[in-house]
Amino acid sequence: MSKPSLARGTRDFGPAQMNKRNYIFDTIRRVFQRYGFQPLETPSIENLSVLMGKYGDEGDQLLFKILNSGNFIEKVTETDLQEGYKKMTLKVSEKGLRYDLTVPFARYVVMNRSDLVMPFKRYQIQPVWRADRPQRGRYREFYQCDADVVGTDSLVCEAEIVLMIHEVLRGLGVENFTVKINNRKILSGIAEVIGAPGQEGPMCVAIDKLDKIGKEKVEEELASRGFSAETIAKLQPIYELTNDQSTIFERLKAWLADSEIGTKGVTELEDVWNKVTHFGLNAPQMELDVTLARGLSYYTGAIFEVKANGVQMGSISGGGRYDNLTGTFGMPGLSGVGISFGVDRIYDVMEELQLFPENQSVSTQVMITNFDAAAEAHGLGVLRQLREAGINAELYPDASKLKKQFDYADRKRIPYVLIIGSEEIQTGTYSLKNMHSGEQQKLDLASILALFA
Amino acid sequence: MSKPSLARGTRDFGPAQMNKRNYIFDTIRRVFQRYGFQPLETPSIENLSVLMGKYGDEGDQLLFKILNSGNFIEKVTETDLQEGYKKMTLKVSEKGLRYDLTVPFARYVVMNRSDLVMPFKRYQIQPVWRADRPQRGRYREFYQCDADVVGTDSLVCEAEIVLMIHEVLRGLGVENFTVKINNRKILSGIAEVIGAPGQEGPMCVAIDKLDKIGKEKVEEELASRGFSAETIAKLQPIYELTNDQSTIFERLKAWLADSEIGTKGVTELEDVWNKVTHFGLNAPQMELDVTLARGLSYYTGAIFEVKANGVQMGSISGGGRYDNLTGTFGMPGLSGVGISFGVDRIYDVMEELQLFPENQSVSTQVMITNFDAAAEAHGLGVLRQLREAGINAELYPDASKLKKQFDYADRKRIPYVLIIGSEEIQTGTYSLKNMHSGEQQKLDLASILALFA
Repeated sequence: MSKPSLARGTRDFGPAQMNKRNYIFDTIRRVFQRYGFQPLETPSIENLSVLMGKYGDEGDQLLFKILNSGNFIEKVTETDLQEGYKKMTLKVSEKGLRYDLTVPFARYVVMNRSDLVMPFKRYQIQPVWRADRPQRGRYREFYQCDADVVGTDSLVCEAEIVLMIHEVLRGLGVENFTVKINNRKILSGIAEVIGAPGQEGPMCVAIDKLDKIGKEKVEEELASRGFSAETIAKLQPIYELTNDQSTIFERLKAWLADSEIGTKGVTELEDVWNKVTHFGLNAPQMELDVTLARGLSYYTGAIFEVKANGVQMGSISGGGRYDNLTGTFGMPGLSGVGISFGVDRIYDVMEELQLFPENQSVSTQVMITNFDAAAEAHGLGVLRQLREAGINAELYPDASKLKKQFDYADRKRIPYVLIIGSEEIQTGTYSLKNMHSGEQQKLDLASILALFA
Repeated sequence: MSKPSLARGTRDFGPAQMNKRNYIFDTIRRVFQRYGFQPLETPSIENLSVLMGKYGDEGDQLLFKILNSGNFIEKVTETDLQEGYKKMTLKVSEKGLRYDLTVPFARYVVMNRSDLVMPFKRYQIQPVWRADRPQRGRYREFYQCDADVVGTDSLVCEAEIVLMIHEVLRGLGVENFTVKINNRKILSGIAEVIGAPGQEGPMCVAIDKLDKIGKEKVEEELASRGFSAETIAKLQPIYELTNDQSTIFERLKAWLADSEIGTKGVTELEDVWNKVTHFGLNAPQMELDVTLARGLSYYTGAIFEVKANGVQMGSISGGGRYDNLTGTFGMPGLSGVGISFGVDRIYDVMEELQLFPENQSVSTQVMITNFDAAAEAHGLGVLRQLREAGINAELYPDASKLKKQFDYADRKRIPYVLIIGSEEIQTGTYSLKNMHSGEQQKLDLASILALFA
């Protein structure tokens, strides 16, 4: 006999949590569909040849790897054993668990390129796995909700992403948020005009820490990363640009006037801004943040990140444009742009702000009591009619004490209890108890059905 | 650069398949909810201590095991290496992938026993993984859709399962099916009256093959399994009982009159039958099949199996009552009954019988053309109004040739295309093309919104 336990970093989702999570998933899914995105699901298990080398060395370490079936040690030689586990890994394991939804999506696009209608707009809502050290808010199994468009570089897609973020969050009641937006080309331009062309990578690593460590420490880090005093001095405008959004485009254009790529980045962002305006979005919650980088690795154009304001929480959504998603699988030059919603964080924000509606749960609406065999038999017929009318209903399965039955309804938050005893059977008039108010009324079946219609 | 491939026995589900699969999932989920079942999700990754020993030796072999992170070979000794891979497995792996939804459910019930409202009715729709040899219709990753009630032995639950099966399949348009039903106690009774008490296990293994190998071979197998000629002779009624359903209960009662447990089994089944009648189910498609065993392992009462008639396909649903689901985790005596729907098989049946509705897909309803920057800007405003009215809509993102845009709409099966050019912007009257009929009409936005309302 084993004492049951959950694997570290994993969670069960009971009915109450599931109903809340589904409320989030359903809202996101509805918005994705409204915008013309179509569903895709890829397998949890992928060949390691698909996954390895796509997430950097650290990512390779964090992949959950599946032990080969049967005699997994067969191919391991004496030399392998001496050289240590790293080299041995690929001899005992050929498959791994999905680490994100992006790489499997790229694999799918490449494998189905001849059948796909381009531009291809897909959404994908599935769990991913990472062998990270579990901590508060960080799990080894968690859901991602992604939407991507590939096969077009139209900035309409960027504008639609801004719209979708607004629709999802406002749809969930999260009203106070900021969509931060930047463009990789602006970062490249900044690196150029300060005299460190191509160095936007290390520049962003340092700048990214501004909120946490302050300007002075950022400048120390830049120096330690080889930025000269002159380039650091020229970088000054970056710290103030974001403060005044009303003039940011002009100031940015002036600063980057000598950089072709930087100017292109500003133009692109301004175009996205205009498109959002053409959409007529009500009170856009956008902010151009020139320090936003999000790791930078594969973004080539727009970069998005969403913060919920007034709560202690990292970004709840992020994404951007990439130009070489499928290049690693031999299909270069496919441009795309995507967004990912972090359901676990959105869930925590909504809990903290008490944004879940009282009755968002799809649960039983009516419970029928069970007095005895005769009442049960009669109740089954009533039950069927309730269900046929689209009402979620159940009959208490045993002729237990009434207190126990009411307790069940109460704890399951069933709003109505229908009492059927011998008198009710004879008259065809049932007592319907409102569990919230305690009120009880006598009604025939037609009136009861009408009540829930 | 790696050539992308799918792991063996796994599948991608593109938009067309996803829409069909979601149609099945949504139907099943709606029925589960209508009957008062609540959602549960458990992690894909479980500790091997939870999974091992629950599915027999073969099951243990078929579990996908996850390689420990970091230096997985550390704990393996020279002796382990010599003794072979089987003993080594638990030293290099502590976790595995969910093999079914039943064992994780049992773990959940035991770990949350003090918080659960009993009887606990849960449904669970999640993938499971088995390292089986892939073949036609058998995958290494596939979904299960389970509903179980634990904490009551009321036969109302069995009757509800029969109802749910009817509602799911009829809801999907699968009209021609048979719900086979049996009871473990009847099988125990049969073993008793033929003079082989306790031998219902081997008896059923042989009887299960009746369809495939015929009566003669079944009797040979019974003999080889140690059944005497006398017991085999006494087993004769089993082959004919099922043929006449109208008198089966009487004949079965007479046959099993001397067996207490057998008589109890018949009484239980008859009670379920009566409850189904009390429900008023229209033309029940039930059949008492005394040869039905379904592996027997943990069933203690009712046994269910559903066949789609007129197609070559194994059972599409199955389940039964068990009394010791949680015993293995230290919580004995909890009775429950459950049903599982095989989505992959139901999908194949529906494809073969062409039962998927034409427009079951939630996809884009209107596409707006993209002529030039001015038309695009105007289109974005129209687009937003369509979406606000609940219409799934998209704007073609580039000002490509109109033929290409129409081709996109056609291939994505978008039923309407809204044409916006300079004239349309001036007049506020747009051309709406019905892609199915080819018809085109000029309408203002209000009329278009009304058309989709």
